[in-house]
Amino acid sequence: MFGWTGTILRIDLTKGTVTREATDPKVAHDYIGARGLGGHIIRTEVDPKTDALSPKNKLIFAPGPLTGTFAPSAGRYNVVTKGPLNDVLAASNSGGAFGPELKYAGYDAVIIEGKAAKPVYVWIKNAEVEIRDAGTIWGHDTQDTTDLVRAETDEDAKVACIGPAGEHLALLANIMNEMHRAAGRTGVGAVMGSKNLKAVAVMGSGAVEVADQEGFKAAVMKARQMIQAHPVGGAGLKAYGTAVLINIMNQMGALPTRNFQYGYFPTADKTGGETVAAKLLVRPKGCFSCIISCGRVTKVDNPAYQGFGEGPEYEPDWAFGADCGVDDLDAITKAHYLTNEYGLDAISMGSTVACAMELFERGIITTKDTDGVQLTFGNAAAMVEMVRKAGEGEGFGAKLAQGSYRLAESYGHPEYSMTCKKQEMPAYDPRGVQGIGLNYATGNRGGCHVRGYTIAIEILQNGAVMDPHVTEGKAGLDITFQDLTAALDSSGACLFSTFGIGGAELVEMLSALTGVDYTLDEFMRIGERIWNQERLWNLQVGYTKVDDTLPKRLLTEPIKTGPSKGEVSHLDQMLPEYYGLRGWDENGVPTKAKLKELAL
Amino acid sequence: MFGWTGTILRIDLTKGTVTREATDPKVAHDYIGARGLGGHIIRTEVDPKTDALSPKNKLIFAPGPLTGTFAPSAGRYNVVTKGPLNDVLAASNSGGAFGPELKYAGYDAVIIEGKAAKPVYVWIKNAEVEIRDAGTIWGHDTQDTTDLVRAETDEDAKVACIGPAGEHLALLANIMNEMHRAAGRTGVGAVMGSKNLKAVAVMGSGAVEVADQEGFKAAVMKARQMIQAHPVGGAGLKAYGTAVLINIMNQMGALPTRNFQYGYFPTADKTGGETVAAKLLVRPKGCFSCIISCGRVTKVDNPAYQGFGEGPEYEPDWAFGADCGVDDLDAITKAHYLTNEYGLDAISMGSTVACAMELFERGIITTKDTDGVQLTFGNAAAMVEMVRKAGEGEGFGAKLAQGSYRLAESYGHPEYSMTCKKQEMPAYDPRGVQGIGLNYATGNRGGCHVRGYTIAIEILQNGAVMDPHVTEGKAGLDITFQDLTAALDSSGACLFSTFGIGGAELVEMLSALTGVDYTLDEFMRIGERIWNQERLWNLQVGYTKVDDTLPKRLLTEPIKTGPSKGEVSHLDQMLPEYYGLRGWDENGVPTKAKLKELAL
Repeated sequence: MFGWTGTILRIDLTKGTVTREATDPKVAHDYIGARGLGGHIIRTEVDPKTDALSPKNKLIFAPGPLTGTFAPSAGRYNVVTKGPLNDVLAASNSGGAFGPELKYAGYDAVIIEGKAAKPVYVWIKNAEVEIRDAGTIWGHDTQDTTDLVRAETDEDAKVACIGPAGEHLALLANIMNEMHRAAGRTGVGAVMGSKNLKAVAVMGSGAVEVADQEGFKAAVMKARQMIQAHPVGGAGLKAYGTAVLINIMNQMGALPTRNFQYGYFPTADKTGGETVAAKLLVRPKGCFSCIISCGRVTKVDNPAYQGFGEGPEYEPDWAFGADCGVDDLDAITKAHYLTNEYGLDAISMGSTVACAMELFERGIITTKDTDGVQLTFGNAAAMVEMVRKAGEGEGFGAKLAQGSYRLAESYGHPEYSMTCKKQEMPAYDPRGVQGIGLNYATGNRGGCHVRGYTIAIEILQNGAVMDPHVTEGKAGLDITFQDLTAALDSSGACLFSTFGIGGAELVEMLSALTGVDYTLDEFMRIGERIWNQERLWNLQVGYTKVDDTLPKRLLTEPIKTGPSKGEVSHLDQMLPEYYGLRGWDENGVPTKAKLKELAL
Repeated sequence: MFGWTGTILRIDLTKGTVTREATDPKVAHDYIGARGLGGHIIRTEVDPKTDALSPKNKLIFAPGPLTGTFAPSAGRYNVVTKGPLNDVLAASNSGGAFGPELKYAGYDAVIIEGKAAKPVYVWIKNAEVEIRDAGTIWGHDTQDTTDLVRAETDEDAKVACIGPAGEHLALLANIMNEMHRAAGRTGVGAVMGSKNLKAVAVMGSGAVEVADQEGFKAAVMKARQMIQAHPVGGAGLKAYGTAVLINIMNQMGALPTRNFQYGYFPTADKTGGETVAAKLLVRPKGCFSCIISCGRVTKVDNPAYQGFGEGPEYEPDWAFGADCGVDDLDAITKAHYLTNEYGLDAISMGSTVACAMELFERGIITTKDTDGVQLTFGNAAAMVEMVRKAGEGEGFGAKLAQGSYRLAESYGHPEYSMTCKKQEMPAYDPRGVQGIGLNYATGNRGGCHVRGYTIAIEILQNGAVMDPHVTEGKAGLDITFQDLTAALDSSGACLFSTFGIGGAELVEMLSALTGVDYTLDEFMRIGERIWNQERLWNLQVGYTKVDDTLPKRLLTEPIKTGPSKGEVSHLDQMLPEYYGLRGWDENGVPTKAKLKELAL
């Protein structure tokens, strides 16, 4: 096979066995790789009713065919599993160089199953695979873990691992690779912790075989040039990182503030990407084969929040910033460093602290609950302290580490949890941007922006323009983006490459690489197949149309201040159209005809 | 030029200027590179009477022609300067990948001169060179410094830096590259600190040009096979590291114990390389292009001394072990980790603690001097605490960090300092091995084993056999080894490659690489030239023949116990012969005829 390595590695931690199997060419064709291929394996091998933290759940690390090639930003892989935060078919997409290294080691996917009797890590060096004792590494944060595992394996090994949060089975736990890159959302780190698996280290010396060398090279060079020429992909993200969105979204009145009570944060500029660049930036950084370089290597000198690392990206910047009413960029950045070190999802963590702040200000919880901390909006030191406590699983932090839904629900007020399907929403207020609200509500992993990023059109006018405040056309826009992204994620490309290229260019590269003559229609159909695969899983888990919704606040309470004042989400106007265009019945269930069409 | 890059980089920290000059082909031919070339530059540009810690001293980082090629173990570079511990012409040889990276960046040497007004580091990326502010990096240990500098430059940058010891101008300070590789002895780290230079980071993308590709390849492959086939170079050092010598030297009765009061340590086996392998070893590790892999990646789980890193090598293992009467391998390893983190010379540090222990047991110092610590031989916790205090420059530790000569002398008892020319001797008792004693006494940088390692013949029978207890033939042996090593060090090869190859193979590789038709005679003559160059420097500094000696104890007190019981060093029998064979007069001064012969 070209593009694919043709081999899947299976590691049973209960039995301590390592086996290899051939990648099925038809499944590879129909699901491409990464998110699609991994989802297919989980759907085939794991019962949707399985307890996500039981040994019966499986954990898959899967790069895509483009991963490890010189296609632009082709450094991605997905962690696919049943996500314990909300039981969805999780596929957490991460960059860096871990995914390429898996390809060079020879694998289209690594399936981890069972549960080790005691802490272990896995060391993959090409065909040599070892399950090694991790007794003395357990308990360390992600940075020390990476160093320790590299000391025991190879200094250049690429390491994906969990921090203390994953060990404690925190439902906000993620998996970090190369210390600063995160496979986040839906609690995938807790699955790794539940298997007593501390880390996966990999080194490979193979290459990705290319079917049509000349054609691939030409397609890649064209794609690179298109990204380079794009104002966002070529210069904007490198100069200011993703946090350049802070001011943009605030000026639209759609920057969720104080747990989505407001859509405008008056001092947002103190936390924006421009300020990051001026105050903290050491250098921009790209993942493997990336020309965009949205990553921020930063350093905080302020003794109260001293540290260095990467970030803040837009989402953590907002979650620990505007959403908590905090405009101290040093504190925000420190909180982000802490989530990376403890292995916590930064979006969910910040939003959960914001939820706790609202509960506190409303008197639903008091200092008796918060271990004595005055947990008011804008209290930067308290915010950082809560992140630390959550990472340690200490006192009130242990509750925070389970996410805002369980937190608010435990105090009888789930309505203050800003979640969809129990997962915290990202930094775009659905009242100010209608399309993204529909995307959250229909999101296959709950509140999520990277599986249907309509912001690209509704705000950033990337190739087309649509008014964020209208609902017309948004159902179709959402579907197009959701399907395109599902296929793109499965290919191993980065979502940000769409700041420059589109489906046509992805198909051109993918076809030349694999020798499979994909068309754009077929590529989009594969995306639709993957989306429906995830929908079917959720229906089998027990989700129904009533879960395709947003927090009541966003549907009923108009934004109080700023440019989007007076707006609510008109989800009810968009959802039926969405179901219809999807070929689903009025309950949001895919029709038999649709499933047949998609060969599902 | 082939082998050499043809360019020397000069950085003036006072003026903040960066200039380039051509490598003089005649100097390159006559002094090869690294130790020889660097020594030539210092001798030409620095007055021997200059205060080593003044801005007028210079600091040179110099790889050799073989450095960065695939010649076996060709990862070496030298730090050349006036060494502040004892004012000698210092050339501290270190491995890893820093030296090769300097070559790839395009430099035969980097000369640092002057003194920065505030802490800085230097970032060399091929032709781009920047002097950058290090204000927030100053104060950090070598590991954090490496991480911080990499964060600011490139994750793959190779970083040489000082720790807190160098910042405090400790005379035992060294320079660490890639965290675990040390350019040690004679206090070169304090020179870096005196210049306010915290680190040098380098990335290069060039190649080493080879004159005769086929000839070089053949010579390299032959050399590699010879090393591979050698019991020490091929398997011994990889299996047990250099610390395999602990038991060997102890069985010879020549393992200095309790500050050289004894030559036999009854429980030495608890600290030997075999025990390191069984208890602490994570994996063996080689430097750039090394097939020997003497390095030890280790981990200490014992909570009292927990840590991970590299070591202990033979010398630190002995210095913190037998020499301090300590047989707790965890404590010894921890002490070694601490010296690497603080940037301290492990041999001198351990020997200085041993000296302090003897002063304490003799009642010359008391707990009033030692900040309350019961500094008795065998007290492992006290030994580790002294290393920490020396690294921090705290209390009694500040005195220890200046070395045993100044310590013992300050209490009126310099005779308890086990030093030659104020530098601590390594782990071979001159009473049990006559030739190494002559080498220490005549050593151009004081007590040192790596500039005339007669142990290879006297103990390890590497290619020849000589009784360690006799003096006959040792003057000639010393001279041959001193000259060969001076040339070898200058080529960029590793001393350990002589466990497999000799001068002939080095000459073969060097000639094919550079296109200069070196002969073995010429190579040895170059070594002799370098040795005499260093001797001339020492004479100009003010050293005389009375300094070519050993601590009185070794000349007058027979070894009390063990296999070498009753032996003393017979230096007086060997030194006149040594002077004669060297072509020096009876005062140890090179004759005019000799200098003319050597073109000095």
